[in-house]
Amino acid sequence: MDDRDLLEIIRPVCGSDTCSDDCAILTLPCGALVTSTDMLHERSDFPAGMTGWQIGWMSVAVTISDIAAMGAEPLQIVLAIGLDTEERLAEIVLGAQACCDTYGAVYAGGDLDAHSELTIVSTGVGIIRDGEPVRRGGAKPGDIICVTGTLGRAILGLTGDSRFWKDLCEPQPRVREGTVARLAGAHAMMDISDGLAISLYDIAAESHVGMEISSGRIPLPPEADVQVALEAALYGGGDFELLFFISEEKMKNLTIPVTQIGRVSEGLKITMDGMELPKKGYLHHW
Amino acid sequence: MDDRDLLEIIRPVCGSDTCSDDCAILTLPCGALVTSTDMLHERSDFPAGMTGWQIGWMSVAVTISDIAAMGAEPLQIVLAIGLDTEERLAEIVLGAQACCDTYGAVYAGGDLDAHSELTIVSTGVGIIRDGEPVRRGGAKPGDIICVTGTLGRAILGLTGDSRFWKDLCEPQPRVREGTVARLAGAHAMMDISDGLAISLYDIAAESHVGMEISSGRIPLPPEADVQVALEAALYGGGDFELLFFISEEKMKNLTIPVTQIGRVSEGLKITMDGMELPKKGYLHHW
Repeated sequence: MDDRDLLEIIRPVCGSDTCSDDCAILTLPCGALVTSTDMLHERSDFPAGMTGWQIGWMSVAVTISDIAAMGAEPLQIVLAIGLDTEERLAEIVLGAQACCDTYGAVYAGGDLDAHSELTIVSTGVGIIRDGEPVRRGGAKPGDIICVTGTLGRAILGLTGDSRFWKDLCEPQPRVREGTVARLAGAHAMMDISDGLAISLYDIAAESHVGMEISSGRIPLPPEADVQVALEAALYGGGDFELLFFISEEKMKNLTIPVTQIGRVSEGLKITMDGMELPKKGYLHHW
Repeated sequence: MDDRDLLEIIRPVCGSDTCSDDCAILTLPCGALVTSTDMLHERSDFPAGMTGWQIGWMSVAVTISDIAAMGAEPLQIVLAIGLDTEERLAEIVLGAQACCDTYGAVYAGGDLDAHSELTIVSTGVGIIRDGEPVRRGGAKPGDIICVTGTLGRAILGLTGDSRFWKDLCEPQPRVREGTVARLAGAHAMMDISDGLAISLYDIAAESHVGMEISSGRIPLPPEADVQVALEAALYGGGDFELLFFISEEKMKNLTIPVTQIGRVSEGLKITMDGMELPKKGYLHHW
């Protein structure tokens, strides 16, 4: 079983609408709040060589990325830190604070616990004061499929290419880009932290659409081997870029550089270069 | 080192004001939001014999208790669940949902992870629409020290008295009582989840006051041995009752049963029956 199988146990309890996006939504009179929580721990998320500062940065960045993926502005982060040894704490909180500062969020404390394996859960609250969150279920046939940045960097870094180590350890969530995409009128959005392919499938499932993408259009780091980078981009995970869906006429509202990788189609299939795209990505298994 | 020592590493980074209460505070035009996050894991928090349903209930209850301790109303809970085996999930989410339902919060999903030790972080958002949160720093000399309920039950349950097992595993956060205390004009409040004694010290440190309590006034379960229950109440932890501080004249505003256990004094000492109260409680150690 993987995460997406187990989500089917939670979905009927929480309600399907609640479990379908990068964040939960809480509508208040003064705006739409979005909240996201992410668990990271040493064995699966903090590769050897990552500093405490980077662990703190990344723990915050993954949550801010989820907030960005709704088109929201991050307000506040709390961290629950399960510490294996006390010496690590100081660097972790400095990295967390630096990431919060960079994106305008308040690092507001949290909880401390003793744990046999370093385990950090970051939870963030974001807000949209002037509109609605962009969800996963709004993609429409004909929409253009866009991504920010260049993909595959994190896995290239993880698998030994030192030029991409910093991309892996210090992800830069796309807060400004998420807001620009929302204001431009994007119909659907999520981050591609589990890989591009599985993210396309997630949007397709929520939006009840198909997609056609071209491998040659996927933006890859120019300094990397194309085949290796493409595999990393599609199935690897760890890139905190945004994937969004927008009508052709609204593309002109975008004031940020993005790459068009394909189009939404009527059917329910997802194809790349005309062949069915494998549904693979970063998943937890039990 | 214990939690409260390590908090001194976080305090200068986050700002002292942020780390001083049961919840972080986020002030919006439509009210004061309070957020709390709590990490629980098998070895330290889920005793053998506790069911999955109870694990889910407790994970939510500890966070709702923190929200109650600010005098706020819980709105939304997200859970990050690090699962050791997939079979446990269904019961856990049902228990979580039941606790959310009981206290009027929405269980809004969260994150799933694979972990060698069952680890759950619950994060909650609460709101006060019509006033300010009650914090730890407002106790004043002359204030009456009040607690809700009867104390010591959780540790009595943990140490083998089956009459209190359910109190340990299914804590009932005092949401209504917290709001009543806030509206009555309580000056300071927190929950006593780490034990009564350490909680008195926490309030005293934030409020810069001393306290005098009487052991004979501490409300204990009538069916328990007094000495054993008193020790559990003072130093044990696991009781999710509220401790609050209110002026004598405002006591009449309280529409809930509470027990007066002492008074706030001018000095910085905390005494019980005239002797210095040991500063002990439930703490994590590294």
